[in-house]
Amino acid sequence: MPDPDGNLNVLSEDPLCAAVFLPNLNVPISPNEGHFIRSHFPAPQINASDWSLTVDGHVDSPLDLSYDDLLKMPSREVVNLMECAGNSRSTMQPPAEGVQWDNGAVSVSCWKGVSLKTVLDQASLKSSATDVLFIGVDSGNVPQAGTSMAYEMSVPMEKLLDEDTLLAYEMNDAPLPLDHGFPIRLLIPGWYGMASVKWLTKITAMDHPNGGYHELDYRFYPATDGKSDAEIERVSSLKVKSLISTPSKGNILQPGHHTITGVAWSGDGHITKVEVSTDDDRTWREAKLEEPSGTYSWQHWEIDWDAVNLGHSLLRSRATDSAGNVQPMLATWNFRGYQVNSIHSVPITVRKS
Amino acid sequence: MPDPDGNLNVLSEDPLCAAVFLPNLNVPISPNEGHFIRSHFPAPQINASDWSLTVDGHVDSPLDLSYDDLLKMPSREVVNLMECAGNSRSTMQPPAEGVQWDNGAVSVSCWKGVSLKTVLDQASLKSSATDVLFIGVDSGNVPQAGTSMAYEMSVPMEKLLDEDTLLAYEMNDAPLPLDHGFPIRLLIPGWYGMASVKWLTKITAMDHPNGGYHELDYRFYPATDGKSDAEIERVSSLKVKSLISTPSKGNILQPGHHTITGVAWSGDGHITKVEVSTDDDRTWREAKLEEPSGTYSWQHWEIDWDAVNLGHSLLRSRATDSAGNVQPMLATWNFRGYQVNSIHSVPITVRKS
Repeated sequence: MPDPDGNLNVLSEDPLCAAVFLPNLNVPISPNEGHFIRSHFPAPQINASDWSLTVDGHVDSPLDLSYDDLLKMPSREVVNLMECAGNSRSTMQPPAEGVQWDNGAVSVSCWKGVSLKTVLDQASLKSSATDVLFIGVDSGNVPQAGTSMAYEMSVPMEKLLDEDTLLAYEMNDAPLPLDHGFPIRLLIPGWYGMASVKWLTKITAMDHPNGGYHELDYRFYPATDGKSDAEIERVSSLKVKSLISTPSKGNILQPGHHTITGVAWSGDGHITKVEVSTDDDRTWREAKLEEPSGTYSWQHWEIDWDAVNLGHSLLRSRATDSAGNVQPMLATWNFRGYQVNSIHSVPITVRKS
Repeated sequence: MPDPDGNLNVLSEDPLCAAVFLPNLNVPISPNEGHFIRSHFPAPQINASDWSLTVDGHVDSPLDLSYDDLLKMPSREVVNLMECAGNSRSTMQPPAEGVQWDNGAVSVSCWKGVSLKTVLDQASLKSSATDVLFIGVDSGNVPQAGTSMAYEMSVPMEKLLDEDTLLAYEMNDAPLPLDHGFPIRLLIPGWYGMASVKWLTKITAMDHPNGGYHELDYRFYPATDGKSDAEIERVSSLKVKSLISTPSKGNILQPGHHTITGVAWSGDGHITKVEVSTDDDRTWREAKLEEPSGTYSWQHWEIDWDAVNLGHSLLRSRATDSAGNVQPMLATWNFRGYQVNSIHSVPITVRKS
């Protein structure tokens, strides 16, 4: 069920979850109408003039900021790749419960807003504050929890004092679109998207992590027992990953010259190498890789392929980042199906038409 | 969409494809209404008294046998595990096109019929015959082929002269049910099910493989190019495999003592060992394994598990056969998604209720 404009592949309508078609990754910045969408509840319609952002908790000067207050503060722009923590979940075996994302829950935008640090400084954060809870206007019933709740998540202070962590109000020079959190969303660059709380209404500084349903849910529950939920590693920084953007799965190609294209990224540095195999993991060739354009963006790559033999081929891409992380053939299995970064494999056929 | 009686999980209604629920594998013989169904075209309603079987081609004495003719011949019974070549296809990554079978396209029946050899002897097979083509009454349009056709497949002579290869007319002491090929089906024991042609109407001895759409389709197209379709290995003998029948995926178990049960089989000998891991592939323990009960059946196994820790676990089973074949963690990828025998993994949760 594509969206009316055909920009996205809609996987769920309520809440709205919609993925990018992979050939559309071949752009420096995703257009707003082509950025993937992952909401947890129906998008709340907010009138900016009625809205305000409360800042309270472990601060000396609680704040109540209007939309205009934020627009008047010093602004900052960050080009950021956002990926849903559950992206590529459908490729994990055995399957995990949740939205069965293919590989299209990833996009890059230029976000503009106020550094969260500016606001926290203005509120005079107490030294006792270790985490900040971000609460969205969006809410609804969560059957698994047996109750209704707002979307909320706390994030440790270390990441929040980074000037690139924004209270964002613009996406590619336009006010935030409804489905991306108008009027204000949090942007935690380099992390999976679940922490970039949309439709922000309240920020509470705390002296401990908040816990709560979604904060416990977005954890890397391993395939072994014996740990309590709170002891399990939280999903945070993006894993090294690459995707083949063209050709697409199932394409029939003419014999002869082709260019295989794609993107790669990591939350743990930039990409230093992308290799491509066209012969079932036997040989790998290094692709031509774009220089890193920003700390949090993707890098495009391409490689020539002379498809001389007729028949089937499985194309694979494998990225290495500057910290030495390499994509695995099989991502580590976990109960919620997060952080899936196994090597992307695209079956195609070479046939004379 | 379960069938009206709830015995099978119906994956497709036209043609009918229906899988077994795994806890129902804990029986020596699957009941007829609980045997998986894989048809390629709508099941033809055949009146046995109007039906006959033609035997022609490279034979000296062509035959036209009635249902009664076959019932009067010497009979033979074979207990046989049948598995669809596409069983577990849905667990292969990247996905392959075709019916997205989970793991339930496997069952065991006691088949009764006439040895095919008896009929071929009666027809005085010529020494020039190398393959026999089996043609079903069932037919229909095949979009991929752009034409209408009957289901048909040729099988090499070697397997056909085995006395256990039957023209079967009974399944567990009852006439063949409609969906299993009434009045007569071929039974090629130890092979994947695609060769056991249902609703047989014609047998033609040939001096070469027939080829044809389904015969070319049921091949192990690898993830590399450069071979013509006819050079690609045909799907034939069952790969070593095991399945966990209980507990089921997603089950929530009480802490304490549990028994994990399952089945295992191979077309390449009997099963010598089944190992089970409850801690994400770190340690494996040997399960208690049933003695082989027949050449072509399955062997049940079970193992005790003391679930002391709360939380998540991934249960896995791994079989070894008497030829030394061991189930792989990742089955070899192929375009049609056949012969998937990767280690079965079942996520469960241990929680006090």
